[in-house]
Formats: sequence, C-alpha cells, structure tokens
Amino acid sequence: MVVVGGGVIGLSLAWRAATAGMAVTVCDPTPGRGSSWVAAGMLAPVTEATTEERDLTRMGLASIARWPRFAADLEEETGVDVGLRQDGTLQVAFDNDDRRALDHLAAVHHDLGLASERCSSSRCRALEPALSPGVRGGLFAGDDWQVDPRSVVAALREALQRRGVPVLRTAVRSVGVGPGGRATGVDTDDGEFRRAGAVVLAAGADSAKVAGVPDAARPAVRPVKGEILRLRAEPTEVPFTRTIRGSVQGRSVYLVPRLNGEVVVGATMQEAGYDTTVRAGAVHDLLHAAIDLVPAIEELRLVEAAAGLRPGSPDNAPLLGASGTPGLLLATGHFRNGVLLAPLTADALVEVLAGRPLPADAAAGCAGRFQ
Amino acid sequence: MVVVGGGVIGLSLAWRAATAGMAVTVCDPTPGRGSSWVAAGMLAPVTEATTEERDLTRMGLASIARWPRFAADLEEETGVDVGLRQDGTLQVAFDNDDRRALDHLAAVHHDLGLASERCSSSRCRALEPALSPGVRGGLFAGDDWQVDPRSVVAALREALQRRGVPVLRTAVRSVGVGPGGRATGVDTDDGEFRRAGAVVLAAGADSAKVAGVPDAARPAVRPVKGEILRLRAEPTEVPFTRTIRGSVQGRSVYLVPRLNGEVVVGATMQEAGYDTTVRAGAVHDLLHAAIDLVPAIEELRLVEAAAGLRPGSPDNAPLLGASGTPGLLLATGHFRNGVLLAPLTADALVEVLAGRPLPADAAAGCAGRFQ
Repeated sequence: MVVVGGGVIGLSLAWRAATAGMAVTVCDPTPGRGSSWVAAGMLAPVTEATTEERDLTRMGLASIARWPRFAADLEEETGVDVGLRQDGTLQVAFDNDDRRALDHLAAVHHDLGLASERCSSSRCRALEPALSPGVRGGLFAGDDWQVDPRSVVAALREALQRRGVPVLRTAVRSVGVGPGGRATGVDTDDGEFRRAGAVVLAAGADSAKVAGVPDAARPAVRPVKGEILRLRAEPTEVPFTRTIRGSVQGRSVYLVPRLNGEVVVGATMQEAGYDTTVRAGAVHDLLHAAIDLVPAIEELRLVEAAAGLRPGSPDNAPLLGASGTPGLLLATGHFRNGVLLAPLTADALVEVLAGRPLPADAAAGCAGRFQ
Repeated sequence: MVVVGGGVIGLSLAWRAATAGMAVTVCDPTPGRGSSWVAAGMLAPVTEATTEERDLTRMGLASIARWPRFAADLEEETGVDVGLRQDGTLQVAFDNDDRRALDHLAAVHHDLGLASERCSSSRCRALEPALSPGVRGGLFAGDDWQVDPRSVVAALREALQRRGVPVLRTAVRSVGVGPGGRATGVDTDDGEFRRAGAVVLAAGADSAKVAGVPDAARPAVRPVKGEILRLRAEPTEVPFTRTIRGSVQGRSVYLVPRLNGEVVVGATMQEAGYDTTVRAGAVHDLLHAAIDLVPAIEELRLVEAAAGLRPGSPDNAPLLGASGTPGLLLATGHFRNGVLLAPLTADALVEVLAGRPLPADAAAGCAGRFQ
C-alpha cells in the first residue's frame, strides 16, 4: 500500500499498518511539515463539544481514550516523549456573553454525559494565578489534554524507520486507476509509477488536489487557514500549567503550555484557498486576546508565526475508509481534529485495509456519507 | 588601519578611507548583521528634532545633506540601488495630547529654521488616503527621507570588495596597546594579532565590550534594545507612499514603506542589556499602533520580527574621533541615528585618520567631550 501524505494522519496509519504486518510506503515531499507542524496539539473533545456535532464529539472521545496507549507504544518503540499532558483545559469568560456561552457548553456536557466543572472567577485564579483579573468565570475540563505534534511526528518517523517503512520525499502527481476502475498505484514527482494494492489519500487539504482521482471518489475537503504563534519562556517560567481557552471580544483563542517552555497561541480561521502567509492583523488579534487572558504573555519571546491549512469537510467530520473507487481509501477531512483523531483514524484504516468494515466508533467519519 | 565592526558605520568609513587611498581592513564575525540589519533606515533629522538636542539635529542635517551624493557614489561604484526615497515623512496626531506634541515640534522647527507644514486631518488623508479616520492632524516634513539599510550594507560590501578591502569574518578579542600607551593593532578570534597604525572602534553597542581598551578611552555606550517588524505587500499594493509616524496612546510608532513592497514597523526602546529576543508584548504594541494609524496594515504579511541594540551614549550623540589613547579612534554611540549619520561619520573619521581635526559639523560628536 501507498500512503499519500506524511503528516500525523498518514504517518500514524502507516505505523499501525506496519505493526499489523502490512507492507507500506509513505510519499510526502516534506513529511510532517504541513498542518501537523503548525497544529497546537490540543486533545479537546470536551471543550470543543457542540450539540450539532455530537457524533464528532463521540469520535473525539473514542480517539482521546486511545491516546495514552498510542503515546506509550510510540515512546516504548522509539524513546521519544510525545508530550502527552493530562492537566486539563480551563475555558474562561470575560463578559456576560462569554458566560452565557459557558452555560451553554456546560449544558452540552450534561447532555452528552461529559465531565466538566463550572468555576467562579476566584476558583479560576486559584487554578491559574496568571489569569487576568478580568476573568468572570470558567469551566474546567479535566479530560481535555494535549500532545506536542512536532514530537508526535518525530516519534512516528523514528518508528517507521525502525520498522523499515520507507517515507519517500516525493510528491504524488496522480493516482493511477486501471481499466477496471481500480486504483493501481501512484505517479510520483521522481518520475516513477509505484504499483500498490491500496492507495490511501492522507494529504490533508491537498487531498482534493491529487490528480487522477475519479470525481466520485474525490474527497470533499477544502483548506481552512489557521494562523498560530509559538512563544517561549524558560521551562520553569511558563506562567500557567493548564491549557487556557477563552473568547475575547468574540475572538476565540487558546494558550497551550508545554513543559519545555513553549506556549502555543492559536488560532485564526479563514477561508483563503491555499494561501499560507501570516497576516499582520492575525498576529495582532492573537496576541491581543492572549494578553487579555494572561497578561504575563507580554514578557514571553515570540519565536514563530505560521499558518497551516486545516482540511475542512462539509460537516467538519473526517472522511475515512472506502472512497467509491476500489483500492483507493481516504483518511482526510480532519479539520481542527487531526491530532486528536490520529489514533482512531489509524486503527480504523487498518481495519478497512484488512478487508473489514469501518469500526462503529469511526462510522460518523464514513467517507461514503455524502454520496 | 583596522576597523572593528562591519555595520553601516564601519563599512562606510572603511569605504571612504579606501577611496582616500588608505589601507583598510574590517573585522566583524557577521558583517552587516548587527543593528544595521534591524534598522528601518529613516533619515529623519526634522521629525526627530528636539530643542534639547539641537546640536545633534544639526549633525543630522549635515549628514542628510550628504546622503544623495553618498548614495549616488555607492550606486555608481557598485550598481546597487540603496533605496534612497525623498517622499518626506508625515507625523500624525490622534488626540489632543498628540496635537500639542505636534505644536511643540512645529515650534522647534520654526526655532531651528527647519521646513515643515502643519496639515489638517483632511490634508493628511489627501496625502495618504490609507490613514485612519481617527487622525486629527499632522505635520509633513518633506526633508525627512529614507534608505534601505540592508541595501546600503550590500552596496558597501560590494564597494569594499571591488577596492580590495578585506572584510574579515572574525571577532576582535582585544585591542593591543604598546608600552608607550599607543594602540598597535587587534587580537582576533582566528588567533592572529593584526598590527595597524590606527584602530577604529565602530562596533556599535559592542564597542564597550572590546577588551584591552584603556578605561579612559572606553566609549560610554550602552545597548538600547529596539524591536521592529518587517511586513510585506505586493510592490504595487503598499497602502501608502510616505513614511508615517505617530503616537498612539503614548507609544511612538513609525511605518516606513519601500518600493519593493516591504513595510518596516518600529520600534520599541528598552534598556535590557545585550538581550536581543523579541517580546510578544512588543510585537503586539507595534502592530496595535500601526493598525491604529493605517488599518490596511492588518492585511499585510508579517515576515520578520527582530530586535537590535542601539549604541546609546550619555547625550544621545555619537562618539567620534580621538579616544584619548593614541592610535585608537571611536566611531560609535550613534543611538537611533546610525544610518542617518553614516556619511558624516565616514567623512569626519577620514579627516581624523589623515591627521586633521574633527570637522566642525561633526564637533558635537567629539569623543573627548565627556572627559
């Protein structure tokens, strides 16, 4: 099999497939340097839950439950710590509108049976003393965690190397489809045709651009740009320990602190085609909101501003499994949840590659649902 | 002679000295990559004028008058365009405090005989339609110009190469002083001692750190950190043509537009030792003020955030000429005006190197004035 795309999704499923004894090749001109490189790594099915997307929330819960084992397996196999932190996430409110949004989120949690705790403003500051005095209240979700996506990618690449899985630094020009309508392999930029019994499209927002895919099988994904900042403190001087989220003058922002001193501040959402430039206004808005939440952010160093392209689908859920073209499978459309959904996606694709149906806990991501 | 420091000052005086037939060597581990690399390149003696620093203003006027010839000579010798733009500078006000500051600046101009024009808010927007509707008035200084410091450095390095002047990529460890108390050369990081009839300290804020300099000759310079941003538009889409300056909630900001699409936004002022990290709060404040002045800044790309160290002196004027130690000359302490004062500094140092006194128009920068 050939996996088109070496981001956290493609690498995860290649690793799990190799573990299951399958022969795998991954093709990506810049492995791990797409949206996986930009992602913050929040594992946040609870604070991202909505009633409209309860199936997606359930998928997120099914996948986060796999993360501790996934991280432990990776670390055992490679020695690479992927930065899984289970300190929970604190969502805070500044004004009455924000508090109403928290009330609504708490109701969603009750409705879906998710654990979260409403917090007074003083309880918020007891949890995180660096929060602004302007915080009016919050909601603590102990079951929303984080990983460091760059470490996850590094660990996956190391695991694949140890298992002898090639990660070819070449772009896939087109998928080959035989006269019987079955995918037969891929044409790569190095001029070769690589024959394969199965082709998995796991190229994020680029998945829609791979040539040769029959129209009916082409994944309905579009790029949704996200700008994000990486700040740095000394490892002992990060001013807070939990992921902090909030809405400031209608703009959502999150702050993800790492043990190595990195603080990720994200993220904008913009439909701007395949543009990955960083707008000055986006950097301003992110910093403004972050400083409003945690004033001490001002003193951190700004070390990186970047933009990634989330692969958005029509209903924000991923596109997993059979594409309609035999031999061509999909693992894309993960939108804001690629890192969260990687373990579930990998396990689900291995099932399908082995000829079994898409597992029930991934069924809401069934790629055929729009046909 | 050996010039310690290959920024815009060291390279300029090395070039003019070589042109005058002197034998010159420049030492710098990273030529042009100090504060010259970070500088915006405003040539702004008019909008920076103060009554307290009228001698410095006069030096600036003497130097800006040399810039057209300096730029033309450089371009003729190298073919490199240094980006001299003579479109003028528009200083604007947002509130009554800002307007009072403009009144004061206009009075200074009248007092010093400098040309500037008070502008109504509508006149400001007629000059630069991209200005915020909140602008309450302004002052236009047609004689404040700009160059592109990175192009200036590139042109100077090319000119030195053509004249056979070595620019050695090595740091100067110490200045050697003979038993008679005369500077004899420099010890460099490559382990050599380079004998020289004259040593010129032109290493910006690092000039105070060079070992071997007798205490009485050590320049009284300290690093004053400045954070600055580089934004990008398509060359035809820069939303304004003149340098725009303003004060927003007490914070000074300037926006310098280049013909190649670059817009430089600067700069903070901070006494922070030799630290050159970029604080998140500084980036926020610069963008916030820039967007307040010109809302279209939001749509530009942020391509660089950097910090440089201005060499501050006790009275903000440079330290030029004899150091008190025979054979050791100074060309440092240019604070905010290194690019502006480069032509005057180069000419003045060539005079002193030739055994003549510091010229009258550079006398306010006489290095011995604090002794």
